Amino acid sequence: MTYTPPVTEQLFVLNHIARIDAMAAHDKYAAATPDMVEAIVTGIGDFAAEVYAPLNRVGDTNNPKWQDGKVTMPPGFKEAYQQFVEAGWGSLDGPGEYGGQDLPFTLATVVIEALGTANMGFTLCSILTPGAIHALMAYGTGEQRQTWLPKLVTGEWNGTMNLTEPAAGSDVGALRSTAEKVAEGPNAGLYRIKGQKIFITFGEHDLTDNIVHLVLARTPGAPEGTRGISLFLVPKYRLDADGNPTISNGVHCASIEHKLGIHGSPTAVMVYGEGEDCLGEIVGDEMGGMRAMFVMMNNARLMVGCQGVQIAERALQQAQRYAAERVQSSLAGSADRTPVTIEHHPDVKRMLWRMRAQTEAARALIYYASAQTDFGKLGDQAAALRAEVLIPLAKAHATDIGCEVASLGVQVHGGMGFIEETGAAQHYRDARIAPIYEGTNGIQAADLVGRKLGMAGGDGVRSLIDDIARGAADFPELGQLAEACRHVTDWLETATVADRLAGSYPYLTMLSTATCGWLMATQHKAAEAALASGEGDAAFLRAKLVSTRFYLQQIVPAATGLAASALAGDAALAPLPAIA
Amino acid sequence: MTYTPPVTEQLFVLNHIARIDAMAAHDKYAAATPDMVEAIVTGIGDFAAEVYAPLNRVGDTNNPKWQDGKVTMPPGFKEAYQQFVEAGWGSLDGPGEYGGQDLPFTLATVVIEALGTANMGFTLCSILTPGAIHALMAYGTGEQRQTWLPKLVTGEWNGTMNLTEPAAGSDVGALRSTAEKVAEGPNAGLYRIKGQKIFITFGEHDLTDNIVHLVLARTPGAPEGTRGISLFLVPKYRLDADGNPTISNGVHCASIEHKLGIHGSPTAVMVYGEGEDCLGEIVGDEMGGMRAMFVMMNNARLMVGCQGVQIAERALQQAQRYAAERVQSSLAGSADRTPVTIEHHPDVKRMLWRMRAQTEAARALIYYASAQTDFGKLGDQAAALRAEVLIPLAKAHATDIGCEVASLGVQVHGGMGFIEETGAAQHYRDARIAPIYEGTNGIQAADLVGRKLGMAGGDGVRSLIDDIARGAADFPELGQLAEACRHVTDWLETATVADRLAGSYPYLTMLSTATCGWLMATQHKAAEAALASGEGDAAFLRAKLVSTRFYLQQIVPAATGLAASALAGDAALAPLPAIA
Repeated sequence: MTYTPPVTEQLFVLNHIARIDAMAAHDKYAAATPDMVEAIVTGIGDFAAEVYAPLNRVGDTNNPKWQDGKVTMPPGFKEAYQQFVEAGWGSLDGPGEYGGQDLPFTLATVVIEALGTANMGFTLCSILTPGAIHALMAYGTGEQRQTWLPKLVTGEWNGTMNLTEPAAGSDVGALRSTAEKVAEGPNAGLYRIKGQKIFITFGEHDLTDNIVHLVLARTPGAPEGTRGISLFLVPKYRLDADGNPTISNGVHCASIEHKLGIHGSPTAVMVYGEGEDCLGEIVGDEMGGMRAMFVMMNNARLMVGCQGVQIAERALQQAQRYAAERVQSSLAGSADRTPVTIEHHPDVKRMLWRMRAQTEAARALIYYASAQTDFGKLGDQAAALRAEVLIPLAKAHATDIGCEVASLGVQVHGGMGFIEETGAAQHYRDARIAPIYEGTNGIQAADLVGRKLGMAGGDGVRSLIDDIARGAADFPELGQLAEACRHVTDWLETATVADRLAGSYPYLTMLSTATCGWLMATQHKAAEAALASGEGDAAFLRAKLVSTRFYLQQIVPAATGLAASALAGDAALAPLPAIA
Repeated sequence: MTYTPPVTEQLFVLNHIARIDAMAAHDKYAAATPDMVEAIVTGIGDFAAEVYAPLNRVGDTNNPKWQDGKVTMPPGFKEAYQQFVEAGWGSLDGPGEYGGQDLPFTLATVVIEALGTANMGFTLCSILTPGAIHALMAYGTGEQRQTWLPKLVTGEWNGTMNLTEPAAGSDVGALRSTAEKVAEGPNAGLYRIKGQKIFITFGEHDLTDNIVHLVLARTPGAPEGTRGISLFLVPKYRLDADGNPTISNGVHCASIEHKLGIHGSPTAVMVYGEGEDCLGEIVGDEMGGMRAMFVMMNNARLMVGCQGVQIAERALQQAQRYAAERVQSSLAGSADRTPVTIEHHPDVKRMLWRMRAQTEAARALIYYASAQTDFGKLGDQAAALRAEVLIPLAKAHATDIGCEVASLGVQVHGGMGFIEETGAAQHYRDARIAPIYEGTNGIQAADLVGRKLGMAGGDGVRSLIDDIARGAADFPELGQLAEACRHVTDWLETATVADRLAGSYPYLTMLSTATCGWLMATQHKAAEAALASGEGDAAFLRAKLVSTRFYLQQIVPAATGLAASALAGDAALAPLPAIA
């Protein structure tokens, strides 16, 4: 159950897909030199393998403990988190003026990938903090930034996202928490927060001495729906005159959930302002909450997509190690009756290569989406638009891949895969949350056909399909999938809302697979070129040829087969009859 | 978390797919009159819902307890099992001369389906006993049948299958347990059994006062591999002169496993003949073990396939109930802003119909395979051949469907799906074992392309494809899939063993989906005819039209997209590079 950082692969994708070199050509990211990039990828890999990975099963089997509103993390977590903060891994893409290192977001993605592959549940703590940082950078006042950012950037304090309430899940606009402005006295200008939030990741724990909750709530008289929502910064402890978090703030953790997986991550029910005043600062304008929240959400969605890569990589490594050790049966059709390790049996090889091809595809998709976000920040409008289109694909498709690969990982183990002590089952359980939170994958598909498809007059999606089609010159299966995507896109653009939604999920899978296919084709050509020139790690490059070919020849054509489903329309979906 | 037996659906499939009427036309199964069939389907549904379903979560959260070699089942299990035995549900297809009811195996399948939908883990106990009965009927002596069958038929004693050892999983032939014939004394003719078996389902428990283990072991000097294996009947307690199980027999349960799911089913490590003599009776001839075991295995494989139906039906019902209650968001594109239950949102409808279509397809496949077994017993050679071809499809594809539907069930619940108390997560965990045990699904695929493809000079598979193609007259997508299956079959027949195995899994999925598509097309036509004639439950029949159309138009074309993968060959699968 160890974890070996796939450094060669990560650097290859950073270079050929994320184009980290092109980023470093800009002043803003000049620090991202090849040496620096390699030092980061290597360094975080070692740290993750040594410090976070050994705690993965600890977290699974020693759930965080809730008592009297406080949550105690499993043994070793606090010390490991301390090391993470002290090593500066949390501040990579944070703003320099607040103690960050001003490096590309793409590199922060690699940091999160490494930590999460080592320990997915634990790493969730560090996924949401950057969202809080981005929201404050975009909408916070100068004073708010000065007050909160330095410790968020280092990770000394963590950030949380408080959206969901019992009756407001996917429908954020239905939330009922309230925020009433304090008119006078020492707290004038602050807001009294009241309400209950559920499913709050790392809403309470003992890793840090403060927690910065970003809470959506409704001001008095605000309109129904998302238009009436404002965003508040609500610390677990308010700061005293010395800036220390010593003042109790009416934030209470009522319980934590008993979940299928990610046991290392406490999921809290949070109660604000019950029995004690709870004060929050508004971030941005009243009723500007959703806009500010989207800044956090886009970031969080990419990071959840990254969890698909994390769990896939971990499951792949575990399965491959088992398959390389487990001896069973001789090779069918061979005269030699000596039993072999199961990695040699064709169907096991097929499973392992499928796992590897899917994992690489998901990684390429996430790095590419992260990089387009970075290029967007550098002023490239086309990249910014591309990032918007990619976010639902990255979140939904990479997490679907995470589940599929984790399930194949169990299968490779045979009966041992079903035994908890083996570890494969934990990945299968952990993986299952990622298609659900930060907007279910169905919500991502709705975002794709609802908002993203219409962006820039449809050019956001069309330019992506054009790029894929151009990249498919030597890959006929990819060309066919690109044309199928184009055909479905044409149909969707004139379809009713219900028809569009009915086909949204298969369409998302098709477009995601086409995008991954294109990124895999790009890598295939890069690997061929590197092999021809004698550069790089030949064993790695030859494996890249196999995985990319597997993806293009075996996974891409299956996605083309989804077109009928994408085009079937809402009429194919009558209301279900009631259960007798 | 209740369970409503889908009686109308079960009867529809029994009539139109299993052709239970045609069975009842034979003297042997004359008892299977329409009234009897309906009484059985209704009766077992009620029993399962009332007695077994309430124990499903009990079993999940109160694992069986191992202490000093004894296993205590969770509260309520012993009483419920007693009711099962007393009601006679275990003896439906048992031989009349030993207390059975001589009804078709297909009806026993429905009994197991109902019980397992209510409580999959618990029902495992009753899945393996019929295998032991079949093995004794086929290879036991008259005395053995007289001694063991009456209590196996009622379920007063349960049967187990002991194949697996730590180094002999998929490769049964590698087993090392030994059996040495007793030459003289009172036990002359019996065998001394020694060895360790793992993953023994219900190998130890307190539901019955005896357990009949069927154990594969090797006699002295027997050749390596499966050829040298013999089958032994090894009771937990030997019988005294009065036929009562009172004599300790050196059978010891060393531990039970900590598993991902099916917690209600104890999975035992069994030790034979350690410290105390363990005596077994040979079943059939020395070194005839594998042949006898196949009788048990074919039965068990169909029953494991049936677990795919069970968990899919349960997950579907749970998701549909939740979707009918959970209110979230108004309908997109509608002027009415009133929030609706989520069952009305197109993508949720898509998930629910997909779950329903897949569940129905799996049920049709299992009933059809069971029925072909019955027709085979009635002397229909073509049916017997068809059953052989269907068994790997039924086992593998139905269990794949179980996993997919259980996962979709979690997704329909959103965040609540990840919370253990909701119950959806249990189905996701329980479902995952079925693709693994009784021969992994990869082994099933190998059986399909290795043994089944060549049967009757290839006619076993070809006649199935012909039937599918004939049934596809009004369903062009099915026709295309049938032709794709034919094309791949042609290729496989001349391919190398390695190429065949490399494509075996996608081929199995294609052929299974085509078979299901054919059975769904048959039901589509039957539902149309019934609606036209005004017979039957119109709401059910209209839903059947939707689910069958969904399957044929949306699931069938995706399977055609697997042809490239089935044809890719072993050359696409280089050895994986070692993890750095």
